[in-house]
Amino acid sequence: MTQLENVCLSQDRKQVIIIDQTQLPNRLEYLYLDKLEDCYQAIKKLQIRGAPAIGIFAGYSMYVLAQQYVGLPYEQFRAEFIRQKEYLNSSRPTAVNLNWALERVLKVVEDNREAGNEKIVELLGREAEKIHEEDKEMCLKICEYGLTLLHDGDGVLTHCNTGPLATSRGTAIGPLLLGAQRGMNFHVFADETRPLLQGARLTTFELMNGGVDVTLICDNMASLVMKNGWVDICLVGCDRIAANGDFANKIGTSGVAILAKHYGIPVYSLGPSSTIDLNCPDGDHIKIEMREPSEVAEMWYKERMAPEGCKCYNPSFDVTDHSLVSGFVTEKGIVYPPFEENFRKLFG
Amino acid sequence: MTQLENVCLSQDRKQVIIIDQTQLPNRLEYLYLDKLEDCYQAIKKLQIRGAPAIGIFAGYSMYVLAQQYVGLPYEQFRAEFIRQKEYLNSSRPTAVNLNWALERVLKVVEDNREAGNEKIVELLGREAEKIHEEDKEMCLKICEYGLTLLHDGDGVLTHCNTGPLATSRGTAIGPLLLGAQRGMNFHVFADETRPLLQGARLTTFELMNGGVDVTLICDNMASLVMKNGWVDICLVGCDRIAANGDFANKIGTSGVAILAKHYGIPVYSLGPSSTIDLNCPDGDHIKIEMREPSEVAEMWYKERMAPEGCKCYNPSFDVTDHSLVSGFVTEKGIVYPPFEENFRKLFG
Repeated sequence: MTQLENVCLSQDRKQVIIIDQTQLPNRLEYLYLDKLEDCYQAIKKLQIRGAPAIGIFAGYSMYVLAQQYVGLPYEQFRAEFIRQKEYLNSSRPTAVNLNWALERVLKVVEDNREAGNEKIVELLGREAEKIHEEDKEMCLKICEYGLTLLHDGDGVLTHCNTGPLATSRGTAIGPLLLGAQRGMNFHVFADETRPLLQGARLTTFELMNGGVDVTLICDNMASLVMKNGWVDICLVGCDRIAANGDFANKIGTSGVAILAKHYGIPVYSLGPSSTIDLNCPDGDHIKIEMREPSEVAEMWYKERMAPEGCKCYNPSFDVTDHSLVSGFVTEKGIVYPPFEENFRKLFG
Repeated sequence: MTQLENVCLSQDRKQVIIIDQTQLPNRLEYLYLDKLEDCYQAIKKLQIRGAPAIGIFAGYSMYVLAQQYVGLPYEQFRAEFIRQKEYLNSSRPTAVNLNWALERVLKVVEDNREAGNEKIVELLGREAEKIHEEDKEMCLKICEYGLTLLHDGDGVLTHCNTGPLATSRGTAIGPLLLGAQRGMNFHVFADETRPLLQGARLTTFELMNGGVDVTLICDNMASLVMKNGWVDICLVGCDRIAANGDFANKIGTSGVAILAKHYGIPVYSLGPSSTIDLNCPDGDHIKIEMREPSEVAEMWYKERMAPEGCKCYNPSFDVTDHSLVSGFVTEKGIVYPPFEENFRKLFG
């Protein structure tokens, strides 16, 4: 890999290569995968994470694996493909992009029965590359639109991880990396993003790697950083956007948005338009995933950080009210309020 | 010790006993101290912390140590006392209560030259106990006034550590412990309080020990907990209160106050009236202590949590604007806005 890319094929196209995100920021280790179980574990253990990245990885994995049983008669080839696809899909049942990418490559197998397995495998490789290319193009558009909101020298606050480790080019921090490539300077404050510390471990790594000035802060320091006048704009990702503009994102995002409003700082949420769910009327209809207390009280630590038996509340996301958002940056453009009306125009 | 007390004398009055706070919450270990170096290290290593607790500990330490050289002629006794006092005082130069308590016990030595060393040592013991008693009385008054703000079943959010480990009875969480003793129930959310995790390590321990229902959250979860309707009141401490009511407290307090205002939840700051500094006009005149980046990126962790060389911003406190505070709870009563006017009445 010449630059930081989270997923790619080996030169002989027989292995899929990923950065082992569980080792960051302590070690930049690449994994060379060509076994089903290793691919499954890579997703399950969060060696690769971020919805788009998982989808891309799944496409490449199925291609690499299919080369190994290309000699089977078609029906057996297809049955083996489905078996492996279903196993891979079970690694993270709630990851929408995973299932979506796997269905896409399965369609290649089913639509090309007459072409022969050799041809099918070739087409699988092309489809996997297409999934990757499409994500890159979409991210690039988000980055370009996002960059129109930024000025040279801007102070930026971001939360969680939305860079090239999670997507092909990044969503919320993508414009910063793109701007830096074009010689612009930004001063970024990265929230560490407890409890999983994606900001401390991954976002700082990506920004430093991309030559962007970044300062790590604890989540509770965002208020002071804003008060100091160091933040011109907040850029965050989104996991799901309701029709009225309420949006779910990593826990703590709503707090950032409320602080920004208090200090008069604009907040933009960046992500693909597929994140907008017009069937979900508002944030009250978004279910928040709860995670293990151990992530708060024990994980990462040398010893427990809370007394044995202490209750912990550990929501993975929160919902930010649409009244706190300046706009949503998608690959189709920037959407401003009134959101519901303008979302419908976007898809109209 | 029958109940959780952070500092006391041994039964034979020859040792000062403290809970080693650096071992919490993993181990409840008591230290029995009767050597100058151990007393010095206890403060320096934060085995004992919290301004009032350090003052109380310093008084007892000087008493315990003085017993060991009571046989010296007065002038040498006094010189040794001063030498030990100055060494102890150098353990944490910015701790105001430490110097204050040491000056108070020195006065006992200097005012009683004619009484004989045996008598002086006896008086030193009484003075140390008086410092402790006074703190207990002051805390109890703060607790009683604070309790008037609470109702049975209230949801309470607190930040950092303000309990019996830092003071004799607690300030911000003192009313909760007092109420629990009287059969009241509260549901407390304790911010973990990064980077030093006083909330996770100490506040949860104190509240569980006092029979108060407590749930630990990461700092960035406060917004969701408030949005869920689980918080009726926020109780926080204070390190310094300016004349206009702006106040410095543990980093993150201003964020809690802004969120609370957004959700319509009252915020009270609890602490001794000695925290009010009428000579400091407003928060802009309060200097914020900066601490080591390693506290954010490395401390507590099995491995680094940010890339080598990553910049970290690590302010120890922030200033909460007076417009965000409902009132200050002191041992002299609760002060409501307009603060400057009402602070002057308090001291008038």
